[in-house]
Amino acid sequence: MADVLAASKPSDWRPVDPENTLYMDLAAGRIVIELQPEFAPKHAANLRALTRAKYFDGLAITRSQDNFVVQWGEAHAPKSFGEAKPALAPEFTRPAAGLKFTALPDPDTYAAQTGFVNGFPAAREAAQGSAWLVHCYGMVGAGRDNDAGSGSGAELYVVNGHAIRMLDRNITLVGRVLQGMDVLSTMPRGRGPMGFYQKPEERTPIMQIRLAADVPVAERTNLEVLRTDTQTFTDLIESRRNRTDEWYKVPAGRIDVCSVPLPVRKAK
Amino acid sequence: MADVLAASKPSDWRPVDPENTLYMDLAAGRIVIELQPEFAPKHAANLRALTRAKYFDGLAITRSQDNFVVQWGEAHAPKSFGEAKPALAPEFTRPAAGLKFTALPDPDTYAAQTGFVNGFPAAREAAQGSAWLVHCYGMVGAGRDNDAGSGSGAELYVVNGHAIRMLDRNITLVGRVLQGMDVLSTMPRGRGPMGFYQKPEERTPIMQIRLAADVPVAERTNLEVLRTDTQTFTDLIESRRNRTDEWYKVPAGRIDVCSVPLPVRKAK
Repeated sequence: MADVLAASKPSDWRPVDPENTLYMDLAAGRIVIELQPEFAPKHAANLRALTRAKYFDGLAITRSQDNFVVQWGEAHAPKSFGEAKPALAPEFTRPAAGLKFTALPDPDTYAAQTGFVNGFPAAREAAQGSAWLVHCYGMVGAGRDNDAGSGSGAELYVVNGHAIRMLDRNITLVGRVLQGMDVLSTMPRGRGPMGFYQKPEERTPIMQIRLAADVPVAERTNLEVLRTDTQTFTDLIESRRNRTDEWYKVPAGRIDVCSVPLPVRKAK
Repeated sequence: MADVLAASKPSDWRPVDPENTLYMDLAAGRIVIELQPEFAPKHAANLRALTRAKYFDGLAITRSQDNFVVQWGEAHAPKSFGEAKPALAPEFTRPAAGLKFTALPDPDTYAAQTGFVNGFPAAREAAQGSAWLVHCYGMVGAGRDNDAGSGSGAELYVVNGHAIRMLDRNITLVGRVLQGMDVLSTMPRGRGPMGFYQKPEERTPIMQIRLAADVPVAERTNLEVLRTDTQTFTDLIESRRNRTDEWYKVPAGRIDVCSVPLPVRKAK
């Protein structure tokens, strides 16, 4: 993989749009999240509005469940939602038509086809069926109650273990963590049911969440992601399907959608 | 799943054999690891010998790589191996014949068939082909160098993120963590290449590793695991393939081998 990336061209990378980038500042550092409005435009817009209303500032990481999710924010904090809506129609799936979908050749337990759309892991029924983002490590979703239309983005979670694919098409995924996943994944596990913290002092405070576009240019974390519609990315997939490092004795010859690295680097 | 477990009979559970149980004591608590000698008899025996030679006592957690592995011990510490061998023939696969294999009905990216053997996630080519343990979250393997026969168990790792199935059949899996995974998974990530800690003080010391059989009965952690060759376990799989909780809108109808819970409880 290192060889493939070393041979990449500048045009194989794209900058991360500041309008689709959230910075969550914790004492331990900045978490950078990229939103995916092709799949969840309403949730992305609501997150921009919630962020601009400073909804998350002073809230906390409320849950850390081993091999499941870390969660933050609150669905109903006594704070202003600003321009944001209190609940959104589900964005669990969308039509596959119109997406630049780089398909993986290998079988998947859960979906007819898996692959990548603009740097995000995804699945689809068929090229003309429905498509959805998938719950790989580092993917960010919007919590909801039993009502499918009860999510708003005010409560978010990130996958911190094995992919939780049974959640696919049941909840809205809206983005992924590009930087700082190591901070979230090592949060002490909560001792309450479903990994919720039981005492306020166990929670990690969120200093602030800001939209990168609202942050002075000099203070931004400028990242680039490898485009997934490039020959370089196809070469990367192949290099991971058939590892040629001397260490490997039996290359798998296959790969699952959540095992393909999605490279991120600092913008040059 | 809670309903299925509540309806389980005492005979659906088996005690964990003290001869196949390692206790790794850290300041943060005891990690309990069950060995799997049906697949890795030589590595299990070597771990008993290394443990009895107190090989691990005073060594440390040396590596914590995000979404990959946490690793401990050392291949070549200046300590006595006691009765243990310095290197073992690989135990990457074994014949499937003779195993009580509870097969999953769903397709898998990497193997012709996946399922469970005596409480461990596994795969096989066919009922008469080869079989192997798989790299799910919490599975423990024996590190090795490039030579397939260079592992000994003196260096161990545990999967701390998405399943690393590309390692299947390339390295010897020897057990799984039954208790304390939350301690290992939240180890601060190492900043060196591959998540190795760079400074000695970043490492978490291992106070001791003992075989449960060598620990006074009163000091043991007595656990039971749900037998995977029971109707109760088959019912549990079904309850997870098709979630009927009100929250789920689209039951997956499928499950991958690393998403099936393998219940553990305190012995009664």
